[in-house]
Amino acid sequence: MNFSSDNVSPVCPEILAAIVAQSSSSALPYGQDEDSARLDAAFSTLFETDCVVIPVATGTAANLIGLSGLVSPYGGVVCHHEAHINQTESTGVAFFGGGAKLLTMDGPSAKIEAPALDAFLTAQSNRGIHAVDPECVAITQATEFGAVYSVAEIQDIGRVAKEHGMRLFMDGARFANAVAALGCHPADITWKAGVDVLSFGATKNGALAVDAIILFDKTLRKKAEKARKRGGHLFSKHRYLAAQLLAYLEGDLWLKNAKHANMAAKLLAQSLGCLGARVAHQPQGNELFMWMEDDLAAALQAAGIIFRPWPAVGKGAYRFVTAWNSPLEDITALANGL
Amino acid sequence: MNFSSDNVSPVCPEILAAIVAQSSSSALPYGQDEDSARLDAAFSTLFETDCVVIPVATGTAANLIGLSGLVSPYGGVVCHHEAHINQTESTGVAFFGGGAKLLTMDGPSAKIEAPALDAFLTAQSNRGIHAVDPECVAITQATEFGAVYSVAEIQDIGRVAKEHGMRLFMDGARFANAVAALGCHPADITWKAGVDVLSFGATKNGALAVDAIILFDKTLRKKAEKARKRGGHLFSKHRYLAAQLLAYLEGDLWLKNAKHANMAAKLLAQSLGCLGARVAHQPQGNELFMWMEDDLAAALQAAGIIFRPWPAVGKGAYRFVTAWNSPLEDITALANGL
Amino acid sequence: MNFSSDNVSPVCPEILAAIVAQSSSSALPYGQDEDSARLDAAFSTLFETDCVVIPVATGTAANLIGLSGLVSPYGGVVCHHEAHINQTESTGVAFFGGGAKLLTMDGPSAKIEAPALDAFLTAQSNRGIHAVDPECVAITQATEFGAVYSVAEIQDIGRVAKEHGMRLFMDGARFANAVAALGCHPADITWKAGVDVLSFGATKNGALAVDAIILFDKTLRKKAEKARKRGGHLFSKHRYLAAQLLAYLEGDLWLKNAKHANMAAKLLAQSLGCLGARVAHQPQGNELFMWMEDDLAAALQAAGIIFRPWPAVGKGAYRFVTAWNSPLEDITALANGL
Amino acid sequence: MNFSSDNVSPVCPEILAAIVAQSSSSALPYGQDEDSARLDAAFSTLFETDCVVIPVATGTAANLIGLSGLVSPYGGVVCHHEAHINQTESTGVAFFGGGAKLLTMDGPSAKIEAPALDAFLTAQSNRGIHAVDPECVAITQATEFGAVYSVAEIQDIGRVAKEHGMRLFMDGARFANAVAALGCHPADITWKAGVDVLSFGATKNGALAVDAIILFDKTLRKKAEKARKRGGHLFSKHRYLAAQLLAYLEGDLWLKNAKHANMAAKLLAQSLGCLGARVAHQPQGNELFMWMEDDLAAALQAAGIIFRPWPAVGKGAYRFVTAWNSPLEDITALANGL
Repeated sequence: MNFSSDNVSPVCPEILAAIVAQSSSSALPYGQDEDSARLDAAFSTLFETDCVVIPVATGTAANLIGLSGLVSPYGGVVCHHEAHINQTESTGVAFFGGGAKLLTMDGPSAKIEAPALDAFLTAQSNRGIHAVDPECVAITQATEFGAVYSVAEIQDIGRVAKEHGMRLFMDGARFANAVAALGCHPADITWKAGVDVLSFGATKNGALAVDAIILFDKTLRKKAEKARKRGGHLFSKHRYLAAQLLAYLEGDLWLKNAKHANMAAKLLAQSLGCLGARVAHQPQGNELFMWMEDDLAAALQAAGIIFRPWPAVGKGAYRFVTAWNSPLEDITALANGL
Repeated sequence: MNFSSDNVSPVCPEILAAIVAQSSSSALPYGQDEDSARLDAAFSTLFETDCVVIPVATGTAANLIGLSGLVSPYGGVVCHHEAHINQTESTGVAFFGGGAKLLTMDGPSAKIEAPALDAFLTAQSNRGIHAVDPECVAITQATEFGAVYSVAEIQDIGRVAKEHGMRLFMDGARFANAVAALGCHPADITWKAGVDVLSFGATKNGALAVDAIILFDKTLRKKAEKARKRGGHLFSKHRYLAAQLLAYLEGDLWLKNAKHANMAAKLLAQSLGCLGARVAHQPQGNELFMWMEDDLAAALQAAGIIFRPWPAVGKGAYRFVTAWNSPLEDITALANGL
Repeated sequence: MNFSSDNVSPVCPEILAAIVAQSSSSALPYGQDEDSARLDAAFSTLFETDCVVIPVATGTAANLIGLSGLVSPYGGVVCHHEAHINQTESTGVAFFGGGAKLLTMDGPSAKIEAPALDAFLTAQSNRGIHAVDPECVAITQATEFGAVYSVAEIQDIGRVAKEHGMRLFMDGARFANAVAALGCHPADITWKAGVDVLSFGATKNGALAVDAIILFDKTLRKKAEKARKRGGHLFSKHRYLAAQLLAYLEGDLWLKNAKHANMAAKLLAQSLGCLGARVAHQPQGNELFMWMEDDLAAALQAAGIIFRPWPAVGKGAYRFVTAWNSPLEDITALANGL
Repeated sequence: MNFSSDNVSPVCPEILAAIVAQSSSSALPYGQDEDSARLDAAFSTLFETDCVVIPVATGTAANLIGLSGLVSPYGGVVCHHEAHINQTESTGVAFFGGGAKLLTMDGPSAKIEAPALDAFLTAQSNRGIHAVDPECVAITQATEFGAVYSVAEIQDIGRVAKEHGMRLFMDGARFANAVAALGCHPADITWKAGVDVLSFGATKNGALAVDAIILFDKTLRKKAEKARKRGGHLFSKHRYLAAQLLAYLEGDLWLKNAKHANMAAKLLAQSLGCLGARVAHQPQGNELFMWMEDDLAAALQAAGIIFRPWPAVGKGAYRFVTAWNSPLEDITALANGL
């Protein structure tokens, strides 16, 4: 079993079928096809508000292009120190943002907390022409340490951001896992709470390669489209991105896949607990962080189970990530020993 | 029949099969999987020289990342005025090149000619700190007007470039069509002629979405990998890019598809000629430019044939692009009337 | 006599006196001093409209920062092929413009002509997401070939620009020479004709090092100030820039210096004509382009007169630039032989 | 008395005289004049090693252009959190560095300590393609909190940097004050300790506007010259920059001015101490940080003494900066009461 990341999983059958179905005919390129034309409506229905959809093939592209509309070349993006955009996307924010700078803060479980954000923005804003003024707040839902912001937490962050005149961005690489965990409506933790732009992840949750930039502020469309083209992210065979996303929404496949992965994480936490591991961050989505002794880690590896040490959490901490195809029975069986 | 571009075609069966085959198991991300590990060897065999392969999902990304290793932020890229990088890739060259500038010249059929290049480089180089010095020459094979550089033409360009201390880049979005037309070895028009970096197109010729940056100068690997990551172009499920490329090379599928498309273009030229159209640029690859009277154009459109006016060639000129799946019989039958 | 450029001249006495006067006391930095505070009012009086003044130390900085507020990273700046921003400012426009591209056109004496501009903008605009849309027109007054746009010509350009939704920038490195030549009010060829931003040159015309970015569109202030700071162009001892500019305006010194230089150019044309040279571009400001035989050129050089060949005008063409301190009597005396 | 910054001081008489002397004749532009030609030799003599000098008008420009040669667009610059490049230069490092990122660490008195640097580099380096690898270390001498690195401290930092394959940059906006404080040879704390590039400040210490980028690694010349031009920082009347620098070196004026300012800071610390203030950071150069009660601060302000609160040091902390022209007698007299 491979828990090194959810991106080791293959395309799920429903989305693969959509790709195959797309392959028996020709269609206009660059989003002029019929399936691409359905995207805005499909996501507007899902989110119960008019929104614009810009599909790209990677989560990093979705984050960077999405953010680039919310910050000027002279401005700052406030994020958690552990944020993917700070730790794992090279110098991408400055690249797509024309020099924009990440301003990092801390918080438990890689979460930004609203009162701390308020204090941070108060201290960092309006410091004059020499300093970098924050212009945007970026949060990750679920966070890089597997935590899920509650509806109230995001509402609080949205309110603080608004009070300080900030735009609000959400990195939703594991948005589906968060919604599945919260049991809320996707609108509750996005536009209703003040999110301007969301990167809506699909790749980690069953797609081949597509994440959607969702613009709740529709005035950002032109800039996002130009940034996408200029960045080499506009697919000629755009319909293959659209087909993946439409299949992902169809019958709430996105939630079904996420629920499976979340359940797998919970079962895995139990099984590993039976083997002597201790939970470092309680799994809320599909990421599980466990403290383990060296010999347990070695035994699991010897049994062919793949996972990764996670020094950012601490020495002796390991990360396990489940996915839409994690084998629940095998995971449960782990509790009985290796 | 849709001749508006080769990118309207779907994935070809062989590559689709490879995608499906990839979808029954997990594999490590970001190019650490077994199929990705085979890419360098597969292309090194094809080109009969050690080379580095950096797959990305779009031709624009391949061009921009490929070029970014060959020019400094203060330098110029010499290309034909009609070049895709000048006309159709937004401000991408400056974006990925940190400000690098396109320096354009003219030439028949969107080709750069070696003597003119020599004169251009002589005039534009070493003009002092205020000017933009050329650092790289970029050519498109086949060109944007459907022409194919001969082996000797590319050798001449390579020699002139070298004499002036320039790097040489080839936009090979339709490289397969060019090789199929020339009947040469792919090495003859690339590294043997001085090409440092090639974008090896597959998307237009049967793939879902993959073009390969081929680094004949292997020292460029690290920079290209960083530019790819930073640009959001590194796929987590990288094996799906690898699988497409391996299937594309397998049994010379790339040439088979290109030969089909080239044949379709030749037959289409004949059929349209029978209907009264005149050839504007003789098709060498899979792009055909025809002069047509308004009523012929209207009659073709009325018959459901899709193609585009091409004002860059001239008023009354139209472009037809064939693909791996163009129906040869239907094209031939066109000669008999609409 | 050194006619290689107007930038070989030293600081003129009036401005030097202002620098000296500034040097006996302390003052707040970064534009918070009293002299800096007077700049907006002084230029608003000069131009008879409220405007914002951003002083920088070089003309290139003035052009690049000024332009950067008028074009997006995905857009184009239309200019003459001979424009300083295209020929002599390295890759600066893309640097400060985040990738913005120069779109060049031709015209006599390095002038853009309104009808040609209209046609160019019609052809280049709205070409879709792949192309670079023009967003701004940039003209140089006086031009790089020494010509001066008439009031009517600039009005026409302004009208065409506006009809196409373009912003209008004026590189006024030799603005004073143009106004002196035209005898018009400076407002006539700037904001009244649709100019949004002007770089108002002083360095070539008697200052030590200062050119002022004049924002007729005052909403651009914040962005220009941030671009200046970020580019390292905000002087700590900002009052020395202010003092130069205030002295430059005082008693119309800027016009007095320019009239002197323009007169010198006219006299020089006469004297060189007597020696057998022919005018290539009739001097309207302080730049003179002459055709000369090799032996005349050699004789002038032997006599210690410094000037430069100008191949952009043609083989056998030479450029002479006069300045505020050109010795009129010596120039006149030239007519009598070397 | 104005202690708000050393940049409130005017040009010192010796440098003003050099500017005046320059103003009676013409000279070639852009560094082709005779004074500019002497710069490399003058600084090579001062530093007792061959070096390249690139003068610019501001310290920010010197830092940003200097740094841009030492870091790639994908790399990181390690600096103290309080560093001027992190706090006070907007998004300039990313701008000139094509996206390069600041990686900040802490340390007493705004100093980086070698062992902490070693640990930081070990943790931050070689983290894979997704992360930003440090490529350069940047230190400020004297630091932003008025401390001066000892020769041994810089040697240690240089050794650690070298062991990790890092380049080493020194922001020497107050380099003269540091050398004056240490009584060392300028070579001891620069190239002999591993510094690749130094920004050698003059503006704060008596010049009108000039800081010199000193390239001890002479291979960086071409890139620095292109970055300077492209950034709009190449002066046409370059000789005025050269004249300031030559006067600044002449007779060790740079050290004389700095010694005066350092002495003023020491005397000011004593006088303020007599009035009840306590030293926050012991002044080593010309910056003094004092703890003061509100009523003392108010009394000083009422007496016309200008200084600034410095919350980065703490609540109740104030910064006083002395300069080449600080009145020693008046400062001493302060001890006797306001």
